Amino acid sequence: MEGNLQIVEQVKFFFEPKSTAVIGASKKVNKAGYVIFKNFVENKNSRLYRGELYPVNPNEDAILGYDCYPSLTKIPNDVDLIVVVIPSVGVPKVMEEAAIKKVKAAIIITSGFAEIGNLELERKVKEIASKAKIRVLGPNCLGVYDPLTGIDTLFLPETKILISNEEVIATPRPKPGEIAVVTQSGAFGVASLDYLAGRRLGVSRFVSFGNRIDLDESDFLEYFLNDDQTKAILCYLEGIKDGKRFMKVAKKVTKVKPIVALKTGKTSAGAKAAMSHTGSIAGSDEIYSTAFTQSGIIRARDMEEFFDMCKALVFQPPTTGRNIVIITDAGGPAIMAADECELRGLKIGALPEECKKVLESMRMNGKIPQFASINNPVDLTGSVTSDMLVSVTEVVLQSLNVNGVILLGLHHVPGLQEDYVDKVAMVSKNFLKPIIACDIGETEMALYIRAKFEKFMIPSYSSPEDAARAMVALYNYGDYLKSQGCLERYLTSFKERKGSTDLH
Amino acid sequence: MEGNLQIVEQVKFFFEPKSTAVIGASKKVNKAGYVIFKNFVENKNSRLYRGELYPVNPNEDAILGYDCYPSLTKIPNDVDLIVVVIPSVGVPKVMEEAAIKKVKAAIIITSGFAEIGNLELERKVKEIASKAKIRVLGPNCLGVYDPLTGIDTLFLPETKILISNEEVIATPRPKPGEIAVVTQSGAFGVASLDYLAGRRLGVSRFVSFGNRIDLDESDFLEYFLNDDQTKAILCYLEGIKDGKRFMKVAKKVTKVKPIVALKTGKTSAGAKAAMSHTGSIAGSDEIYSTAFTQSGIIRARDMEEFFDMCKALVFQPPTTGRNIVIITDAGGPAIMAADECELRGLKIGALPEECKKVLESMRMNGKIPQFASINNPVDLTGSVTSDMLVSVTEVVLQSLNVNGVILLGLHHVPGLQEDYVDKVAMVSKNFLKPIIACDIGETEMALYIRAKFEKFMIPSYSSPEDAARAMVALYNYGDYLKSQGCLERYLTSFKERKGSTDLH
Repeated sequence: MEGNLQIVEQVKFFFEPKSTAVIGASKKVNKAGYVIFKNFVENKNSRLYRGELYPVNPNEDAILGYDCYPSLTKIPNDVDLIVVVIPSVGVPKVMEEAAIKKVKAAIIITSGFAEIGNLELERKVKEIASKAKIRVLGPNCLGVYDPLTGIDTLFLPETKILISNEEVIATPRPKPGEIAVVTQSGAFGVASLDYLAGRRLGVSRFVSFGNRIDLDESDFLEYFLNDDQTKAILCYLEGIKDGKRFMKVAKKVTKVKPIVALKTGKTSAGAKAAMSHTGSIAGSDEIYSTAFTQSGIIRARDMEEFFDMCKALVFQPPTTGRNIVIITDAGGPAIMAADECELRGLKIGALPEECKKVLESMRMNGKIPQFASINNPVDLTGSVTSDMLVSVTEVVLQSLNVNGVILLGLHHVPGLQEDYVDKVAMVSKNFLKPIIACDIGETEMALYIRAKFEKFMIPSYSSPEDAARAMVALYNYGDYLKSQGCLERYLTSFKERKGSTDLH
Repeated sequence: MEGNLQIVEQVKFFFEPKSTAVIGASKKVNKAGYVIFKNFVENKNSRLYRGELYPVNPNEDAILGYDCYPSLTKIPNDVDLIVVVIPSVGVPKVMEEAAIKKVKAAIIITSGFAEIGNLELERKVKEIASKAKIRVLGPNCLGVYDPLTGIDTLFLPETKILISNEEVIATPRPKPGEIAVVTQSGAFGVASLDYLAGRRLGVSRFVSFGNRIDLDESDFLEYFLNDDQTKAILCYLEGIKDGKRFMKVAKKVTKVKPIVALKTGKTSAGAKAAMSHTGSIAGSDEIYSTAFTQSGIIRARDMEEFFDMCKALVFQPPTTGRNIVIITDAGGPAIMAADECELRGLKIGALPEECKKVLESMRMNGKIPQFASINNPVDLTGSVTSDMLVSVTEVVLQSLNVNGVILLGLHHVPGLQEDYVDKVAMVSKNFLKPIIACDIGETEMALYIRAKFEKFMIPSYSSPEDAARAMVALYNYGDYLKSQGCLERYLTSFKERKGSTDLH
């Protein structure tokens, strides 16, 4: 256990409560209090949520088969967690009752506080909670989604009924995985879940903290530092509450697991928008960049990088240096990757002599095409076969002078069959250096190849520059770990993890 | 008709030949000569290709039901176009026969010329062609794909058989559309087709020019300038053959239709790779950027921008100024879009007074949510409904002080139904200013909403920054047209086109 134990113990009640009461549970299907309570009921039925469950609503006798309580204090047993979905004016009273019940944790979904100028109401809630030592998430937030414990306070149903009466997935819940999501924006939070689910990336835990009158980004970083399920953290921020503490906590975290941050409000227009969105003072963007760099946080330039970089960091080890080799059957895309690598600080240098020698003899023996280009990028041309791509990848990975490989195996050429993915995965397992794949295209085989790579935890991208940027994240993180003297330790623990989660 | 008429007449034979001979047509299914000849046969059977077709191969009597000729000169009728797929040593002889037959155009697919050092062989081919006034595409190229005339010299079959015996789409041919593709890299060429087909974007014509011993990028720009089917041009380049001429032609083209360029070899590593790929001298990247800007070419920074920007330029009119309004139900993503707009030269300024007034009265009358933020971005919050989003979009589009709208309607909120897409499309039809949509997510409803927008020719993106960058392209192009005094003319012709191709 590292860091602040007390926070960790307290935050645990948000993810693993023994009992939960939903204040404002409802029978009306289009109410947030219905959706949230139903999430719990369904997760309890499937034995995902294993705690007790209590609906609180003075106007109902029972909801979805559960006896309803007129108030929190009428519940005969202990309550660890309350989820509050009643109108804002009623929230202080609920918090007073929570104090009496010795509730440990409160997720206040309700909006209508500071974000619309109701400062006094928010202050009151904060005061009661603080006095009673109730830890609060929110208000004005989406709360928590935990795929392992069944806590799901998202008031957006998983599916939506179209006007045509067809039911479609609208706000999917990703499968259990290794990425924790911490987000200031609720809207971007659900969008993230939609993105991650669609790309088949799993989530360890998800937190949307809204007005953060109590728990904030730093508290959750502290928690995720100690959460074994979480191997990387995605953090969306419009402003930071306590910069000094954030950096202190982040520094602890990034020695052990990567944080990828998307910090918006970079421009004056963006900062103004952030102000009117979550009341955040965006501050100087340069200061943030510096703080992130100093804390080992990988900063994404945009939404796509945010997800792309995190995927690479979860699937692959960081590099131990900046020397990258590009292997391809597609000359043009390889130039794109080379350009982006160099523009972002990686080195696409001469192919190491030991690789060159082996590849030259392979070319002489007809094991790779006669016109293959034995430089960096290594271009095996349209005459490539699966076996050629695999054996060249192995030769390059073996070189101690290569820190990572970008494999642009465009599937279009006749000799490249899908089995090269399995074989590359097999070969790359023997090396503790990153490999990143790219195949361009948006139809069947491209989608199939990319998905297949990711089954083997080889991150796969649809554009050469995206692949390059993913490698940049692995380099930057490795470089930071090295500067902190903890690269070896991270690599060792990554190796253990990789060994134990083969083909997840 | 504008520009160089002679070139246009000559290049026409590559896309609309009255007769084609495939030199090296084969019966062996894994040979390029089989795939290409079969493309022609299938397109002839479906009446897409309406010219004559002759296989040439001294070792066969007939291929796929067509009588085979031992040599080109033995064909009794005129031949407009030859497609050459025999080994390189035999190409000069074929070209001599082509000279005798008075062939107009030759696509030399065959590789093994200058790109591997066979300079003399290439020189010989060039000399024969030039003397006989045969226009040549290639060698070492993929040639032409024309979805309207059925010319398809791509030797990569549309489908591939997996090891599991399943047949999957591997190199799709996009439907007929308005985008011309000119590419130096063949591999990137097929990757482009795969991308465009998967994103349901159509192609007017596709050309891969390889070693360009005769026709080059400038010739095809000249041709596409006069091609009514082509409304925008995607141009992938590693180097430019004749910079002066390229700029001259490009300047003519961009007054009438946009060119989006992806020029690689930006870094020394990339330039080196370009050199060994197509023997191109990449040159100083700054010089290219300046030349592109001066010629009105929109330069994409990476592959994704390349396609994203072109889509925007084909679907929407350019802006007449830099004032953009963002309308959303998702605060966080709106900040991302605002940041990216401002970073790239657009202005997310204060909401024009006339909009503000109307929106304030709508808020008072409960026609938009009480807590909607009437700034720029306009944030209608999670309480938004389809009708709110539509009416606000209309109010904003009406303002003379707004040059374009980015609509980030995240579908996750309960009140937003898919009909807002149809309604926004209906409203936006009345304005000659661009609208760009974004919905984040990779599952059912997100994909559905984005596809639906594009049916109405509203370009739709999966990330806020991509949407912003698409608007940047519309601004940059509009700004260039304005500087050339031809914005009005372009807008008029865009309007006519839009009117006639409703919901394509």
